[in-house]
Amino acid sequence: MKLKIKFLKWSAGLPVAMLNESTAKKIGVYPKDHVSIKTFSSSPRKTSTVIDVSNDFVRNNEIAVSLELKEILGISSGDYVFVTLTPPPKSLDIIKKKLIGGKLSQEEIQNIISDVVSNTLSEAEIAMFVSAMYSKGMDIDETVYLIKAMLKTGNKISFNKKIVADKHSIGGIPGNRTTPIVVSICASVGLTIPKSSSKAITSEAGTSDVIETIAPVEFSPEEVKKIVAKTGACLVWGGALEMLTADTKIIQIEKTLKLDPEAQLLASIMSKKLAMGSNHILIDIPFGDGAKVSHSKAMELKNKFELIGKKFNKKVKCVLTDGTQPIGNGIGPVLGMKDILKVLRQDCDRPFDLEKKALFLSGELLELTGKAKKGNGENLAREILSSGKALEKFAQIIEAQGGKIKDFPEADFQKDIFAHKDIKIKKIHNKRLIFLSRILGCPTDKFAGIYLYNHVNEHVKNGQKIVTLYSSSESRLKEAIEYYDNEKIIISD
Amino acid sequence: MKLKIKFLKWSAGLPVAMLNESTAKKIGVYPKDHVSIKTFSSSPRKTSTVIDVSNDFVRNNEIAVSLELKEILGISSGDYVFVTLTPPPKSLDIIKKKLIGGKLSQEEIQNIISDVVSNTLSEAEIAMFVSAMYSKGMDIDETVYLIKAMLKTGNKISFNKKIVADKHSIGGIPGNRTTPIVVSICASVGLTIPKSSSKAITSEAGTSDVIETIAPVEFSPEEVKKIVAKTGACLVWGGALEMLTADTKIIQIEKTLKLDPEAQLLASIMSKKLAMGSNHILIDIPFGDGAKVSHSKAMELKNKFELIGKKFNKKVKCVLTDGTQPIGNGIGPVLGMKDILKVLRQDCDRPFDLEKKALFLSGELLELTGKAKKGNGENLAREILSSGKALEKFAQIIEAQGGKIKDFPEADFQKDIFAHKDIKIKKIHNKRLIFLSRILGCPTDKFAGIYLYNHVNEHVKNGQKIVTLYSSSESRLKEAIEYYDNEKIIISD
Repeated sequence: MKLKIKFLKWSAGLPVAMLNESTAKKIGVYPKDHVSIKTFSSSPRKTSTVIDVSNDFVRNNEIAVSLELKEILGISSGDYVFVTLTPPPKSLDIIKKKLIGGKLSQEEIQNIISDVVSNTLSEAEIAMFVSAMYSKGMDIDETVYLIKAMLKTGNKISFNKKIVADKHSIGGIPGNRTTPIVVSICASVGLTIPKSSSKAITSEAGTSDVIETIAPVEFSPEEVKKIVAKTGACLVWGGALEMLTADTKIIQIEKTLKLDPEAQLLASIMSKKLAMGSNHILIDIPFGDGAKVSHSKAMELKNKFELIGKKFNKKVKCVLTDGTQPIGNGIGPVLGMKDILKVLRQDCDRPFDLEKKALFLSGELLELTGKAKKGNGENLAREILSSGKALEKFAQIIEAQGGKIKDFPEADFQKDIFAHKDIKIKKIHNKRLIFLSRILGCPTDKFAGIYLYNHVNEHVKNGQKIVTLYSSSESRLKEAIEYYDNEKIIISD
Repeated sequence: MKLKIKFLKWSAGLPVAMLNESTAKKIGVYPKDHVSIKTFSSSPRKTSTVIDVSNDFVRNNEIAVSLELKEILGISSGDYVFVTLTPPPKSLDIIKKKLIGGKLSQEEIQNIISDVVSNTLSEAEIAMFVSAMYSKGMDIDETVYLIKAMLKTGNKISFNKKIVADKHSIGGIPGNRTTPIVVSICASVGLTIPKSSSKAITSEAGTSDVIETIAPVEFSPEEVKKIVAKTGACLVWGGALEMLTADTKIIQIEKTLKLDPEAQLLASIMSKKLAMGSNHILIDIPFGDGAKVSHSKAMELKNKFELIGKKFNKKVKCVLTDGTQPIGNGIGPVLGMKDILKVLRQDCDRPFDLEKKALFLSGELLELTGKAKKGNGENLAREILSSGKALEKFAQIIEAQGGKIKDFPEADFQKDIFAHKDIKIKKIHNKRLIFLSRILGCPTDKFAGIYLYNHVNEHVKNGQKIVTLYSSSESRLKEAIEYYDNEKIIISD
């Protein structure tokens, strides 16, 4: 049926097309049915998508489409397209096969990923794929196919260097802002380390949110190459590079479901590194109560990462670290950046746990890339950090990205929380702490967050501060205090 | 945060609430996050829901909600509500437990179903639950919990009769309109048989779509009781009775995913029967190539249905029938009704396969309810049908529902398809036939559909008609002819 195009600025999860009820009936489609859309141009473009039905936004004989569909079809508002009912995509049967534990071929995984990228699969259908991976797992072969399929869906960057290093954490730990420190230390000795990071979706801040407090993080692949040519490193947002469209879409659904299937985690991390041309990769796997994984699961992940590295002929080393409590004191974009600067400046009140972990990771990466002898990496890292070279390199990178190291004012609203008796901190609840930071406004409100004065096993005396909550909004601060009072976040004996 | 209510006539899958980007940022929510909404009235109502973000329909400090949310909250357009970010619901963790194969308790299943009904879970999250049931299955205990939880989510009807009979088919076979015939035969001997049926979502027609060609099918529970008191039976649409809100929502997602987890199938059917107060239940399980299930799966289903019947202290009998090809000649609402009337009127050109199956099922149900002696049910059924009593009873039921048996004109557009040589039909592809009927306009276009002149193993001579395609739309007929030409639907040697 011939329909007139209308555009929607649609950002509700994945994009879809919309018909009103009467037009949907005429074509014979129900909400969530698949249709094929074909343009009328001389070389017609064709795509398939999922249909939503609403009488609010669409008139008779119109089809409202998302901007994403507009680009795929190369059409303008008011153009006509031809819309027909299509059978469900083959990828649904393939996902069904995985749901009952079948092993998928390279072609089958490619088929699913293509349908994810082309919007052929709906949000619920991608949720089914994520559920299937979570429920039945994927073996190394399938994971490698997944990585290969994802790599086809975006840009790649090449730096023409023999050694391209990278450092990654599987995440889940509040604070834990080692990346800018590790990158600055390693780039100081001449390593090429083009680091792309994420922005927070469910956490208090991603590394990109933290860097963004002092410098832009959105660059094209060409711009990234220039920054890296100048400084040997970068600290940019991976999302802006459009390297892995499929990965981005799948992760969005994962966050909705609060599911993190292992195969997708492996594929997501490894495909990002491979798209960046990295060949010496250090992966930090925090484990334990409150972390994403247990010790045994962490060991399993380590083995898989390293095996996949071999399959792609890259050096991959995983280190297991303590993930039972936050790393550093500042939880939030600006508060995290303050921690980083204190460590780089070697201030007396710097968070020593963050420094220790950053030195350990830097040492490992220096050894992996041959910049330090076995057993000497951490010493070299400490030397670079103490000398001020890392701070200098960090300033260089930030400047190359168009930013500047600066001091921050405090958030407009804050609340100190005090101990009402002498306590010893037994546990800090990572997930609740992250949720608290989001109530405060993280990561959108850069100044929002939590400052932790102590870590586990430390003593707090009656009347001393335990935490300070920060927010740019008084009402959010109020909500956060209520949440803090009702939930056990800092647990003492 | 205090927001102003705006309404959306939203029918895109499950209802959600919408904020614009700026308001979403202020509250700190991302698309698909969960929020809690509280009214400001003296006895405030509270619910939680999933957030979508769009700048098209919502202004700053507004929240656009679906009509469903409006009813839950008892609010009017322009009212203010208080919206806050809430942690993900506990049911997500429970679904996750099922995804990795855990056994769920009665409380846990109740928790999921409550969150489905209250819109706490998003479409993608319900998709995860459906995927989990499909991937890991549920045992009899869990299925019984699911039935109990579903029964709590809607109306129940009681007929105050010792024996309340029902007949159900698990579906998937084109045509197969035995229900109106079986109900008419059984009600003729005084059985109480209040039959509620579905409307088509992915098939050419549900029994309700077929009955709707001559009578209304949407009644309240009170109205159904009156119809049944008058005639002993009814042929109504289950959806209008609002008996199982949870079931309706889950089925909607299942159709999207093309998944049909066994536990949900068992629970969906059994909870509908129990809500109707049925205690003698015959279930038709078509099996074989082209049907929903294989023979071994059908046996497994039979055992489970009968075991669940025992758990609820009801007589349940399952019969396995041939599901490899369509039953009857008319595929579509009006075409299906014509078949039914031909059988009830005992016309010479009636579809004998449909009659045979209807007599078999009627016989089984008459024996199960003690209306016929063992081995004599089918004879009694044939007697009733031949005598015209079944036709009389059918007319009575239709009249009690406000309808009238009538003759139909033909569809506006039709196309005969002929054999181009002498052939023997080897197979009729059920799924493609159903898809063909949907292209033609089924079930919305009541006159659309397919007439089959022959079944499997029958011979068609060169130049004889194989099928006739019907549609009220010339363009849909054209599309359907193209689909018929490209896909193997009637397969001959």
